[in-house]
Amino acid sequence: MSTNENLLSIFALGGLNEIGKNMYAIEYANNIVIIDCGNKFPDESLLGIDLIIPDIAYLVENKDKIKALIVTHGHEDHIGGIPFFFKKLNVPVYATRFTLGLIEIKLKEHKLLRESELIEINPSSKLAFENMSVSFFKVTHSIPDCLGIVFHTPEGNIVHTGDFKFDLTPENNEHADIHKMAEIGKEGVLLLLSESTNAERPGLTPSEQMVGEHVEAAFMKAKRKIVFSTFASNISRVQQIVNAAQKTKRKLALLGRSMVNVVDVAIERGYLNVPEGMLISQHEINEWPPEKVAILCTGSQGEPFAALARLSTGNFRGVEILPDDMVVLAAGPIPGNERNVTRLVDNFFELGAKVIYGSGSTSGMHVSGHGYQEDLKLMLTLMKPKYFIPIHGEYRMLHHHRLLAESVGVEQGNTFIINNGDVVDIENSKARQTRTIPVGNIYIDGGNVGHVGEFVLRDRKQFAEDGMLIIVLTMSKVEGKLISEPETISRGFVDGDFSELRRDINQLTTQTITELQEANRNKWNGMKKQIKRAVQQYVYTNTKKKPMVVPILIEI
Amino acid sequence: MSTNENLLSIFALGGLNEIGKNMYAIEYANNIVIIDCGNKFPDESLLGIDLIIPDIAYLVENKDKIKALIVTHGHEDHIGGIPFFFKKLNVPVYATRFTLGLIEIKLKEHKLLRESELIEINPSSKLAFENMSVSFFKVTHSIPDCLGIVFHTPEGNIVHTGDFKFDLTPENNEHADIHKMAEIGKEGVLLLLSESTNAERPGLTPSEQMVGEHVEAAFMKAKRKIVFSTFASNISRVQQIVNAAQKTKRKLALLGRSMVNVVDVAIERGYLNVPEGMLISQHEINEWPPEKVAILCTGSQGEPFAALARLSTGNFRGVEILPDDMVVLAAGPIPGNERNVTRLVDNFFELGAKVIYGSGSTSGMHVSGHGYQEDLKLMLTLMKPKYFIPIHGEYRMLHHHRLLAESVGVEQGNTFIINNGDVVDIENSKARQTRTIPVGNIYIDGGNVGHVGEFVLRDRKQFAEDGMLIIVLTMSKVEGKLISEPETISRGFVDGDFSELRRDINQLTTQTITELQEANRNKWNGMKKQIKRAVQQYVYTNTKKKPMVVPILIEI
Repeated sequence: MSTNENLLSIFALGGLNEIGKNMYAIEYANNIVIIDCGNKFPDESLLGIDLIIPDIAYLVENKDKIKALIVTHGHEDHIGGIPFFFKKLNVPVYATRFTLGLIEIKLKEHKLLRESELIEINPSSKLAFENMSVSFFKVTHSIPDCLGIVFHTPEGNIVHTGDFKFDLTPENNEHADIHKMAEIGKEGVLLLLSESTNAERPGLTPSEQMVGEHVEAAFMKAKRKIVFSTFASNISRVQQIVNAAQKTKRKLALLGRSMVNVVDVAIERGYLNVPEGMLISQHEINEWPPEKVAILCTGSQGEPFAALARLSTGNFRGVEILPDDMVVLAAGPIPGNERNVTRLVDNFFELGAKVIYGSGSTSGMHVSGHGYQEDLKLMLTLMKPKYFIPIHGEYRMLHHHRLLAESVGVEQGNTFIINNGDVVDIENSKARQTRTIPVGNIYIDGGNVGHVGEFVLRDRKQFAEDGMLIIVLTMSKVEGKLISEPETISRGFVDGDFSELRRDINQLTTQTITELQEANRNKWNGMKKQIKRAVQQYVYTNTKKKPMVVPILIEI
Repeated sequence: MSTNENLLSIFALGGLNEIGKNMYAIEYANNIVIIDCGNKFPDESLLGIDLIIPDIAYLVENKDKIKALIVTHGHEDHIGGIPFFFKKLNVPVYATRFTLGLIEIKLKEHKLLRESELIEINPSSKLAFENMSVSFFKVTHSIPDCLGIVFHTPEGNIVHTGDFKFDLTPENNEHADIHKMAEIGKEGVLLLLSESTNAERPGLTPSEQMVGEHVEAAFMKAKRKIVFSTFASNISRVQQIVNAAQKTKRKLALLGRSMVNVVDVAIERGYLNVPEGMLISQHEINEWPPEKVAILCTGSQGEPFAALARLSTGNFRGVEILPDDMVVLAAGPIPGNERNVTRLVDNFFELGAKVIYGSGSTSGMHVSGHGYQEDLKLMLTLMKPKYFIPIHGEYRMLHHHRLLAESVGVEQGNTFIINNGDVVDIENSKARQTRTIPVGNIYIDGGNVGHVGEFVLRDRKQFAEDGMLIIVLTMSKVEGKLISEPETISRGFVDGDFSELRRDINQLTTQTITELQEANRNKWNGMKKQIKRAVQQYVYTNTKKKPMVVPILIEI
């Protein structure tokens, strides 16, 4: 990218003006180091799409420069794109022990584990690339083993916070290394990239400890079996549930593939302490009296095929929710999932269960893993950066984060609110926003043929609104004339009879073709466009609907 | 419905286990009185659907019994179904002056105003039907002129609360008549139907007065023009904005058709006091200095074509949002609208505006119109009903409302949590849940041909997920044989080339037809099913996608 060999450039391939698909890059003197490679879950307007990942065309073009992918932690919005990334670019991946465990699960599923180079690091690790060295510091978040990153360059130090909050009483000793952060700040930070998820929320994130107390209280109160649902990767929450189960002498069953996988990794790698004999399989649940059983399962976001949803509708084989069972949703709904979650809650109430749900502040069963305003200000104060790029957030979050930075001393004009693809260049320790590299979304819809692009999505949207009219024309190859009347078929348009409209469409089509042929415009592509236009206009005038119109030519 | 002439029956056609399309009915001795006729806005899974209204087939069958439609207040979920109702059933409508104003706007749009019988009532009105008389009491809500209803029957009194909260300091003297409620309770209530929207929320609803103070503070602080967005029908909020504009000597422009219409009705009928000369048209906005202008507009829910959304994207002709303008979203997002709303907020921040947004408790710009738990307990305490049906809410809300009723003395077993269509019969002053009448949803999608049913919706969903494969077969009428190769066309499936798969599908289709014909199974319907099944299975095995498969037969 750079014509100047010693230009230091920073940009994002995803994560700015959005929540999800985090991917940032630092480029210096022909070296690119990538930070994270996440995915994003689509909103409902992206019909049939399962995942969104960053378009990495720019990286593929510059693949010889790429030295490493460093992963800050194991959440989907930071690792979910890795298998797709690997299919195009095989570079060494650096991550902590727990994060690597989750990446390995993913690569195994995609049959990519054998050819990948995974390198374990810890907060004390140091990496050296040409002209750039990298060190780390531990941060607290809602998953174990999270890192912040320091890039030591000749221009100065660049810090990427990863996702973080400050929690002085976390579970399992997941303390942030505040002393090291203070040292980094003292040494001097030229540019800070800090996450912005909760930049709108005043105050300090509550501690995990608070949740622990509520979890224990729920276990004490439960008369029969108790079902907890949370994010599988939230090992602190899982540890709290294990602790409460131990105190109340309950066996614990895990439901849901990702829960089983992640807990396995956490136990095996030493991030979770489960007393021997506590875990039972789902088939053993009914062998114990209900007051001796706890269940931990996935699906707290109301995902329709996850364990919790199936329990709520009585569709989980072998496990039934009965009156006086307790169900706890120990994770707040992510914006967009509210309706799915409340539907589950309704179902559980109908089954007679006692349900504990709602945002963390009402249920006490959840605290955010992302720092609130005071946490963000503390990070900014520790790092004392000259320049600041708020990352990991939608525009209003980035905007509020800028105001926070200015409130603790970052100079006005030294904060860059940029978009994915916008490049901030640093030269002679001066930063400015310069060029833009190409970025975009890749839509993954779970299939394994072809590719879903804007084109297909547009068709899906139009059909979803008003359905489709298919007009089949049978023409003689030799004479180039209609052999029979056009035939119009509808799907997703209206129920029942629309024979009058169909007759009109057929007539209109015949007439359009005749007129075009008389004017000697016999090319099929041109005729197709004309037919589409004429029929669309006629249908809209008469029905106020805009179905997709698909003329099909059959030549005999 | 009743075989017993003196049976008193209560049921809902909409509003139970849902938010929206409220419609309840009281039937006694061959008289039916209907309460409200609302619509509901679809969630995003209902592709292309604009509105949902109750299926009134039962009422149409019993139309001779229907004496009246009484409307408690003018919100869409209580009046939005009326034009569609009127097309099938023309019965007298009773409502207060302001509510009638809003109903008239609706009927005018549907060209139904002339043939409808609209009767104005007020809280002192009394209606008499055979064997049943009706009286009213005033309640406070987020729209003027709201009613609760008392049905006086030989079995006892039945009370329907309408939507309400208690607010001792409302705007415009919209006080609830607590004294009358106390009298009704003293006289004796056999059955109470009370709304449940906020039954999950502890405490008492905050007063409108609180919002007034915040509105005034925002006007004081605004340096340039100020844009307020709220529900047009929330006349209290509009009055507060008018008052603040007056204090700060600003002109007020209304943007959005429904804002103009509703404010017109409110001024004309005396529910809103606007100083002479304050209102300006949207074309006059730029004639005044920005610090002398306020704008009141629709679209607080992020509706993509409403005034606020167009302002946020710079697409409102003649009005531009500039740095230091202030934008206030004076209505919390309804669940499901969060993403649309935050998108607007992001856009306004990008334009440099100061934006006040968020839930009422953070912004101070909104309070709910629906009573919290203490409001609901106060209503139950005033009415002292023997039996109780919680209405107007999803299951968990109804469930919590039952617990509240029991906490203030309603006997266990005397609360009925029922579904739309479930009938509670009262005989000898004893209530029990008995039969079920047919109910359902009617989907309106804005077009004017045909009807959108489950069938069309299913097609739209399948297409939206994975698109469609159309297979055209051209057969000879005489010989009943394929004239040429089948032709497969895709839409919404994948971008680009899938020629290999298409070739396989065409072959598979030919083979299926040949096999069926050899077995002498020549009927098109049977062949169609077989082709669909074979192709669907083949495509799923090879691509993990499930496109809709549509075989089309052309006979020459």
